Amino acid sequence: MNTVEVCVSTELFKCYDSKGKIVVVVDVLRATSVICTMLHNGVKEIIPVKSIDEAKEYKDKGYLVVAERDGKKLDFADFGNSPFYFTKEVVEGKTIVYSTTNGTNAITVGKDAEQVVIGSFLNLSTLTDYLNHQAKDVIILCSGWKGKFCIEDTLLSGALAGNLIGLGNFYTKCDSVYASMDLWAIAKDTMDTYVEKIAQKHRLKKLGLDDVIGYCFTLDTTTVVPILRDSRIVSFDKYK
Amino acid sequence: MNTVEVCVSTELFKCYDSKGKIVVVVDVLRATSVICTMLHNGVKEIIPVKSIDEAKEYKDKGYLVVAERDGKKLDFADFGNSPFYFTKEVVEGKTIVYSTTNGTNAITVGKDAEQVVIGSFLNLSTLTDYLNHQAKDVIILCSGWKGKFCIEDTLLSGALAGNLIGLGNFYTKCDSVYASMDLWAIAKDTMDTYVEKIAQKHRLKKLGLDDVIGYCFTLDTTTVVPILRDSRIVSFDKYK
Repeated sequence: MNTVEVCVSTELFKCYDSKGKIVVVVDVLRATSVICTMLHNGVKEIIPVKSIDEAKEYKDKGYLVVAERDGKKLDFADFGNSPFYFTKEVVEGKTIVYSTTNGTNAITVGKDAEQVVIGSFLNLSTLTDYLNHQAKDVIILCSGWKGKFCIEDTLLSGALAGNLIGLGNFYTKCDSVYASMDLWAIAKDTMDTYVEKIAQKHRLKKLGLDDVIGYCFTLDTTTVVPILRDSRIVSFDKYK
Repeated sequence: MNTVEVCVSTELFKCYDSKGKIVVVVDVLRATSVICTMLHNGVKEIIPVKSIDEAKEYKDKGYLVVAERDGKKLDFADFGNSPFYFTKEVVEGKTIVYSTTNGTNAITVGKDAEQVVIGSFLNLSTLTDYLNHQAKDVIILCSGWKGKFCIEDTLLSGALAGNLIGLGNFYTKCDSVYASMDLWAIAKDTMDTYVEKIAQKHRLKKLGLDDVIGYCFTLDTTTVVPILRDSRIVSFDKYK
């Protein structure tokens, strides 16, 4: 039996022991949904970077750069952070540098673990299957919003943890897992209205960027498992 | 209209702006339940201290000291952290020095706010009334467990935030408030079974200290509002 835990904010990750465990990074609105989309459409690799300066340096070297802060595309970047930009025509075979407000921070926070993989509603079933076969302890790391708890990442955590426990090979003693599963149980059949509680939904709406919400909450549109290898996110091939 | 927010861990409090706000510190199992009990039974004042060394220094000066770590009473202390110790006979008119694993840390973390008050299920209705009359923005600060999210503090946050919003003078844009209210809605009529999800319940049970659970989840056994004044917790008299 393996354990599953949920960490509700990157700021709390230091309270967890990630040694030998798989960390699943979650930023439903929007980084990890975007990453799954890019991988699904054949991007070669994604280089997640924390700081704006690093992203700029890559831009100066000629890389394609996706960069946003507080939802808005940064001036020097090639793209903002909507999954709709990253069609097969745009990303196939490319290397993309990626820096966002919360999600890319979470990816770099988690990189001392045995593995770092990327979770979203888009790859939920494939990710469940992947983790179940890996047979290692799992920490689901919510990106949150500037360190604070956020609902959307917690809902995905509840869905994923519930899947893993339901398959019989995982157990938990983690309060955040129980809370996440209970919230997902409330929300899952009423997402159209439940989404109104999500602060990030309203932030995106103010920016005219909330057209992505329905897309980011759609289950199982892809079978990719994005995984961090040598500080780059690539597709774990077996599950491609 | 005033705002209400929930901060699910002391480690996340730095992400909140507490200036001009009332911070309600919550550590249901057991610090804030114990503090409400002490005040109810007439303690003169409680001196919360973060470190074991500070607690020892007070002991050497002749103070009555309550100190525990990981649930267990420290050797030099006069008392461990069960509310049942602090009868009227024991505490009336006394000054008590108090140091616990999580709760006293949260009290000292929050002390830059306009006011710091103490919340538990024991004083829920009185505290609701107090905050409603103060007409200031409120942050409910969950002590959690060593920085991690915990269910019991979140449930009280949901009950209190729901009360405040229900009275019509508070609103929220905080994901943690919505999540807390939803969890309280699930748990409140099934606490006897819901409590099994709480890791701290099992920690206390291992130590033979889980006899306090029912007591700490009982609503409205006191009308005290413990408030931090000059680094000491005293009773806010109007509500005594």
